[in-house]
Amino acid sequence: MPHPLRVHIESVCKLTDEEFEYIITHFTLLKHKKHSPLIREGDLVKHEYFVLKGCLRSYITDANTGKEFTYSFAAENWWVSEREAFTKHTPATTTVECLEDCELLALTYENRIKLGREIWKYEHYVSMKTNLGYVALQKRLQLMIMGNTKERFENFVEQYPQLYRRVPKTLIASYLGVSRETISRLYRK
Amino acid sequence: MPHPLRVHIESVCKLTDEEFEYIITHFTLLKHKKHSPLIREGDLVKHEYFVLKGCLRSYITDANTGKEFTYSFAAENWWVSEREAFTKHTPATTTVECLEDCELLALTYENRIKLGREIWKYEHYVSMKTNLGYVALQKRLQLMIMGNTKERFENFVEQYPQLYRRVPKTLIASYLGVSRETISRLYRK
Repeated sequence: MPHPLRVHIESVCKLTDEEFEYIITHFTLLKHKKHSPLIREGDLVKHEYFVLKGCLRSYITDANTGKEFTYSFAAENWWVSEREAFTKHTPATTTVECLEDCELLALTYENRIKLGREIWKYEHYVSMKTNLGYVALQKRLQLMIMGNTKERFENFVEQYPQLYRRVPKTLIASYLGVSRETISRLYRK
Repeated sequence: MPHPLRVHIESVCKLTDEEFEYIITHFTLLKHKKHSPLIREGDLVKHEYFVLKGCLRSYITDANTGKEFTYSFAAENWWVSEREAFTKHTPATTTVECLEDCELLALTYENRIKLGREIWKYEHYVSMKTNLGYVALQKRLQLMIMGNTKERFENFVEQYPQLYRRVPKTLIASYLGVSRETISRLYRK
């Protein structure tokens, strides 16, 4: 079976065996236990991660109330990091925690830039995938502005059926910006 | 004075005169009148646009109620298009209209890919700028999930002081997902 990262890159452009073998040498394998934080608020973020196994969530904590707001999930074959901190070299303003035991491939910022510079296909892959992520985020924002809770929930189930089954209801409620009661009602339908 | 598009690209990486002169040959100058739609719902979207002059807004229309929801603005030195339709070659689900008379530089999808392939710096520029756009969108979504209207407004004024002065209040209210009354109250403060 081809490597999951190779499959992911090749959904944008095909690689030779040599290219992929070179790319993969820039990554480090990491294991993280369930409930452990991968990134904490205030951390400098030196890596982005490709998820081989497990599920994670990113959340922001209200400084006044201490309340947590989940704003994204990640599972197998997704990239996860604290994008702003990773890109701008500023301290993380959000937390990323493992919801399950996780296996991750870590890439440093220096190696991300180096790979893009050396292998045009890698830069193109990042550019296209970021663009698709942008589109997905925009869709989510549009549904939020339009205020349609039911459509937001249906869109989530359709886009991420694997998360819908794996992630606690309360976290999905937080992600969608709705109450726990609303989410329970929507689940029952 | 250097060309605004050159300044924008060079905020990511410096170009030689030859590189920029080659890049700019791939763009076409367009003029659009105030109130005219640049992209209509249902259109196939063949171009993305760099704004030389003017201001635009993108909005989505609720199919049931006909109500419009503004989800983004663009002004000088911003890129604008219907990103999903442009990338996936699907019909546009949103409308982009000129709020003022506009001058735009249009780039076709084929030329976007060609430039990225021929000039690594261009691919890197797109990749880095998309990433920053993603971060900005994420911030906006986080503030929306956290439900803090005042912070959302302040964040908007701080990030886009030029829009705050140029764009009608009702459109900013729609963008922030708050009522017109709330926005008037915030403006007075």
